[in-house]
Amino acid sequence: MSGRDERGERGGVEAPGGILVVGSVALDTVETPFGKAEEVVGGSAVYFGSAASLFGHVQLVGVVGDDYPLDRLDFLRARGADLEGLEVAGGRSFRWSGVYDYDLNARRTLSTELGVFADFQPTVPDTFRSAEWVFLGNIDPALQHGILDQIDAPRLVACDTMNYWIERDRDTLLALLQRIDMLVINDSEARELSEDHNLARAARWILDRGPRHVVIKKGEHGAVLFHEDRVFFVPGFPLEEVFDPTGAGDSFAGGMLGQLARAGRVTERELRRAVVFGCALGSFACEAFGPDRLRDLSLHEVGSRVQGFLEMTRFEHQMPVGP
Amino acid sequence: MSGRDERGERGGVEAPGGILVVGSVALDTVETPFGKAEEVVGGSAVYFGSAASLFGHVQLVGVVGDDYPLDRLDFLRARGADLEGLEVAGGRSFRWSGVYDYDLNARRTLSTELGVFADFQPTVPDTFRSAEWVFLGNIDPALQHGILDQIDAPRLVACDTMNYWIERDRDTLLALLQRIDMLVINDSEARELSEDHNLARAARWILDRGPRHVVIKKGEHGAVLFHEDRVFFVPGFPLEEVFDPTGAGDSFAGGMLGQLARAGRVTERELRRAVVFGCALGSFACEAFGPDRLRDLSLHEVGSRVQGFLEMTRFEHQMPVGP
Repeated sequence: MSGRDERGERGGVEAPGGILVVGSVALDTVETPFGKAEEVVGGSAVYFGSAASLFGHVQLVGVVGDDYPLDRLDFLRARGADLEGLEVAGGRSFRWSGVYDYDLNARRTLSTELGVFADFQPTVPDTFRSAEWVFLGNIDPALQHGILDQIDAPRLVACDTMNYWIERDRDTLLALLQRIDMLVINDSEARELSEDHNLARAARWILDRGPRHVVIKKGEHGAVLFHEDRVFFVPGFPLEEVFDPTGAGDSFAGGMLGQLARAGRVTERELRRAVVFGCALGSFACEAFGPDRLRDLSLHEVGSRVQGFLEMTRFEHQMPVGP
Repeated sequence: MSGRDERGERGGVEAPGGILVVGSVALDTVETPFGKAEEVVGGSAVYFGSAASLFGHVQLVGVVGDDYPLDRLDFLRARGADLEGLEVAGGRSFRWSGVYDYDLNARRTLSTELGVFADFQPTVPDTFRSAEWVFLGNIDPALQHGILDQIDAPRLVACDTMNYWIERDRDTLLALLQRIDMLVINDSEARELSEDHNLARAARWILDRGPRHVVIKKGEHGAVLFHEDRVFFVPGFPLEEVFDPTGAGDSFAGGMLGQLARAGRVTERELRRAVVFGCALGSFACEAFGPDRLRDLSLHEVGSRVQGFLEMTRFEHQMPVGP
């Protein structure tokens, strides 16, 4: 645990701290009712980085094979992302392929080829050790522990995981919960981790095990932040066309941590706003194959969508309502 | 269509207009993971009336058999509901029984015994014809048409339906859409009616066919109001204990129309607030078997829960967000 959460802004003269992400860098082949995209750049670190680099200085740690089209990550560099932590190993890059059903909620994995990702031993470059905002993408929890050992004093550590690790390495994951500030998972994972179908109780179970904040992603139904005894809901953005939901969850995390880094403090107010920015980035990610939509996105467009969320949720009420 | 929607308040000296509901009055046997309740009072008109009678003068139209325990509806009368339109026919009352799975979202119907409800020909008592707020519960759309023929000049007509009628009497239902102001249905029904999986497009399809407002209920994920080109989302209330979701949708409708009747006008602001009141009533309905929780509920408790929704959804954002 960073122990520096919620303490407000630092001195104010320093440059904003780096946003470190560790995760997969992949080539995805995706089929949806709208068509098929072959070997587009993807992976949790790429989606997170595409979103977070709109807000601040991204530092990426990952691995690719010597067959990876690195020039297709130039848009990240152009936005100031530092890819020094992206190792190029001899062998094939991580490849994933999947197909989405007509309703775009359910997906089937057709193939997973781990390649060099199977032996990934993430090393944090010295220049990344002072990162202030850290996102541990969905990888082996033992590796997530190893990353934390290599980082000095982050202000906020957020972490993703998946059913695979919950089932296979539960103890390592539970130990990790005591070292992070925020768990960012989807609803089925929260239920499986807590062994409780009720999401409110599931979140409380997780909060009792370490993290100060739990963010539960609900796909088209939006996201929920649980924080102390408070709950904050954001609906899914009502897109009329969803092209490809791949990476929406990591784009969500990138938008959320990016906005927190930009705000420079982890207060209730900033957390709420950051979750909405996350939902905005997650919705943009669905509008094209791969991270294409995030590549051309401006912060002004993001702000307009956040404004859209505000208009979709606000209402007036004053207590007391009395007979 | 009433044609008087959105026109603001009337003179102001009249008493608030009646809230008329037509629907089933049943005996429900419900099994959930928390236990079993045998032959509790239920049905769409009972749940709607239990909720709406907190806000205004309910006028109920329905039918029961001569075996119905009418004294168990005394709590409605005590809240000023007029049951003159509740016909007692010779024969057995409508009985439904069902069982909920552990997650309380999926339910299976074990038996449906229509009894006197099979020959229901609703008659609106003369004293109900001037009702201003009308809810057509989920019954045969031909009967819903017949109700509208018996009402003078309602300010707002809201209507529910279900997959059964969408599949069997689509044309009658489509004709009904041109006579109502608001359709209140759940997400799967909206998808089936519009033949479009995307909920935003489904809502637009419905709006194009008559109603000025479409309210889509999403169970534990809350509700959405579509109104002109605007969308308003309310999340589901994060209950830690859901005892029995039976009747939540009709309680939602009762809370919504009740609050609109209390407000006395159908503006964007009042519609939004009314949908939140609907969600509050829907959540209370889940806290006990049958309408038990609604029976003892105070308007102050409802207002507190609406305040809870406000706290769960509010955030701050100001455009422009600039690079």
